[in-house]
Amino acid sequence: MAFDPTSVRSHLSRRDLFRTTAAAAISTAAGTQAAPFVPPQTGSQKSVIGMPFEPRDSVRMALIGCGNRGTGVLREFLAVDGVQVTAVCDLVREHALEARSVVERAGQKLPAIYAGNETAFEKLLARDDVDFAYIATPWDWHVPQAVAAMKSGKHAFVEVPAATTIEDCWKLVDTAEATRRHCLMLENCCYGETELMAINMIRDGLFGDLLYGECAYLHDLRRLLFEDRSEGLWRRAPHTSRNGNLYPTHGLGPVANYMGINRGDRFDYLVSMSSPQRGLDAWRAAHVPSDSPKWKEKYICGDLNSSMIKTASGLMITLQHDVVNPHPYDRINLIAGTKGLFRDYPPRIYLDEKKPEEYAPVDAYKDKYQHTLWKRQGELARKVGGHGGMDFLMVYRLVECMRTGTAPDLDVYDAAAWSAPGPLSEESVKRGSQPIAFPDFTRGRWREKRGWLA
Amino acid sequence: MAFDPTSVRSHLSRRDLFRTTAAAAISTAAGTQAAPFVPPQTGSQKSVIGMPFEPRDSVRMALIGCGNRGTGVLREFLAVDGVQVTAVCDLVREHALEARSVVERAGQKLPAIYAGNETAFEKLLARDDVDFAYIATPWDWHVPQAVAAMKSGKHAFVEVPAATTIEDCWKLVDTAEATRRHCLMLENCCYGETELMAINMIRDGLFGDLLYGECAYLHDLRRLLFEDRSEGLWRRAPHTSRNGNLYPTHGLGPVANYMGINRGDRFDYLVSMSSPQRGLDAWRAAHVPSDSPKWKEKYICGDLNSSMIKTASGLMITLQHDVVNPHPYDRINLIAGTKGLFRDYPPRIYLDEKKPEEYAPVDAYKDKYQHTLWKRQGELARKVGGHGGMDFLMVYRLVECMRTGTAPDLDVYDAAAWSAPGPLSEESVKRGSQPIAFPDFTRGRWREKRGWLA
Repeated sequence: MAFDPTSVRSHLSRRDLFRTTAAAAISTAAGTQAAPFVPPQTGSQKSVIGMPFEPRDSVRMALIGCGNRGTGVLREFLAVDGVQVTAVCDLVREHALEARSVVERAGQKLPAIYAGNETAFEKLLARDDVDFAYIATPWDWHVPQAVAAMKSGKHAFVEVPAATTIEDCWKLVDTAEATRRHCLMLENCCYGETELMAINMIRDGLFGDLLYGECAYLHDLRRLLFEDRSEGLWRRAPHTSRNGNLYPTHGLGPVANYMGINRGDRFDYLVSMSSPQRGLDAWRAAHVPSDSPKWKEKYICGDLNSSMIKTASGLMITLQHDVVNPHPYDRINLIAGTKGLFRDYPPRIYLDEKKPEEYAPVDAYKDKYQHTLWKRQGELARKVGGHGGMDFLMVYRLVECMRTGTAPDLDVYDAAAWSAPGPLSEESVKRGSQPIAFPDFTRGRWREKRGWLA
Repeated sequence: MAFDPTSVRSHLSRRDLFRTTAAAAISTAAGTQAAPFVPPQTGSQKSVIGMPFEPRDSVRMALIGCGNRGTGVLREFLAVDGVQVTAVCDLVREHALEARSVVERAGQKLPAIYAGNETAFEKLLARDDVDFAYIATPWDWHVPQAVAAMKSGKHAFVEVPAATTIEDCWKLVDTAEATRRHCLMLENCCYGETELMAINMIRDGLFGDLLYGECAYLHDLRRLLFEDRSEGLWRRAPHTSRNGNLYPTHGLGPVANYMGINRGDRFDYLVSMSSPQRGLDAWRAAHVPSDSPKWKEKYICGDLNSSMIKTASGLMITLQHDVVNPHPYDRINLIAGTKGLFRDYPPRIYLDEKKPEEYAPVDAYKDKYQHTLWKRQGELARKVGGHGGMDFLMVYRLVECMRTGTAPDLDVYDAAAWSAPGPLSEESVKRGSQPIAFPDFTRGRWREKRGWLA
């Protein structure tokens, strides 16, 4: 759905679906790290860790949000066997119609259309021929729509970030546990060719015992942010209301998998710092006419936000975010251990006592370490898939899990933990880089060692 | 001087020259950043900012510490016109004799030798034919020897880091101000060809308004640290007693210059985090015989230490340290602004809206931006100078300032501020990454904008 930022905010506020940070209870122990915003829930909720999908030969999908991303991933789903698209929804009817024709061109029956107002998705969710909703709307809609989907008995697959407040992270966890539905964040970078290869290298001990990871989302989005269409309609808004890491999951997800976060380890606390805000001001001055309403906006998000995360087992992660300055695209995607390290952009490896001290390209390791998913489906993925094929691999694997009645690779606890650095970094920045604790969304079950895409 | 770590510590302790962190008064304001260890001094000390050297056609040098580094930089000083070496000193007589023959081979009169015990340097400092002492001893000796030099009326030029506690940073500042002698840290990386080129690019506005810097000392020193000679005799010791950034200045010095630290801005506070300690354990297990006394050592310094520094004007710096894991040598040396960035290893540049989004090698910018020092002396520097020539440029420039009666490029406030992240990172790590304030060693004069090597 495409909205202007004002209407998103006011709408959500009116319907009381959106809670501001100010409303959260905050307690800090002086001299030690700050407590989480919201204490871990201690109710009788039963975990959804390892909960398998109900097996089903054909899975029925509804698309909520038919913008660029929604329609793009829709195409990926349609390229996988066993997916039937029964309904599509967007605030803008033309977008929904375009999505419908994408489904039609794939040779499927015409899906139902829900469009034209902000409650359309609720009508879609009342249908009984939908197994899962894929939610690709602006960030503020992810939680209300995912919660509504689960309460209607549908699995909810949401775009990144899943949530932008800690309360909303808990809401996803609580709802998934209460409804016994999965709420997954479709973090495509976890399925990248190099990311999955790195997993195999780590398992083989190539880098020895792990020590630290580094990751980022460094992506110059200034042009997109100021467009009068698509994400330009709403994605500047967070820059006017939040100062922290707005988009942590593309960098953090893969590194979390390298370290087995929520599968034997967990994020313990973070500290965060922001540079001054200058990038959006400079872009606006250079490109936006002086009579544009965009001149009423005040940008408060520091251009670079950098956080350091400590895990319960003592490992550390650095996490950066910058979308408003000139920088070559970079997620860093580094994992280091006692015997060597892997670093992306471009993908390269350095192993112990190499002379001269130079990185080697990852190519020589491909035969040995390429992930079985890429061996099986890489050729098709590269042909039909967005972002180098990882989008396709992600949906292919997800559909495979649903059809075979397997537990998904990622779960609501990952969605919550990987989204949490958003609000936690804001809080740390606000408090002059004080350490802020992560909630334990797994309620203690992070200690259970589990493989990831083994 | 070469000592075994135990004797360094016990000796200093006995003579009460070395204060432990535990002895420092620490106060923390809950919910805000921690106060500095030691409140700024408010005495009547007069700043040495901008204080010119007394001009002198020939400057007389004494060398304290005739190990690898001391003898290497001695050769650089001897390659500059107008330097006369009058005395050399080392605990080990053979090292002092070797330094003497270096002086002799340069065609100079034989310098006096002071050697054989730990008070030899005091006798050297009693001479009246020494203008400055260059101190290249193990870290714990830098402050007592620099203080003694200044109290004997000599300028003190010390190796990095100048000090390892905040009290000792203040001791250098207080003594320089009281004695009206300069205490400089010979941070060679400030004189590197790319570092000085970056300064010119920044001044020309190539990167726009500055936002953040990144720097590091990532240097695999495991082999050196375990040798039974040279730095192997004492440089493992800090890994048994400190957990933080042991060696911040090579990375931080150049970035401080880019940002005008102490010349219009200053370091405000830092937060720091360490990875687990694993590198030295693994190396020892693989290389050290089981009956070696080295097996009695317990290493407590996290392999990677990472800090984030906020400046008073709001800029930020990330600073890393790792000397015990496999990693290609890297000081990062990054400076980013609204129009682009410079990043080293290898030196490269990215400017606004470049398509494709790729770094360009720095070579194309060399004609326009090479620093005048390198234009004047680069050829000689590359021929005779260590570390690609920057060692020579550093001493060449220092001698130039002394002979012409100019204020030095760097001063005791830089030595203190750049060394401070050592103890401040230790304190932050100890407190679970709490923010720790930098003392203002300039007592307020950091606000004065001054050029650097203009």
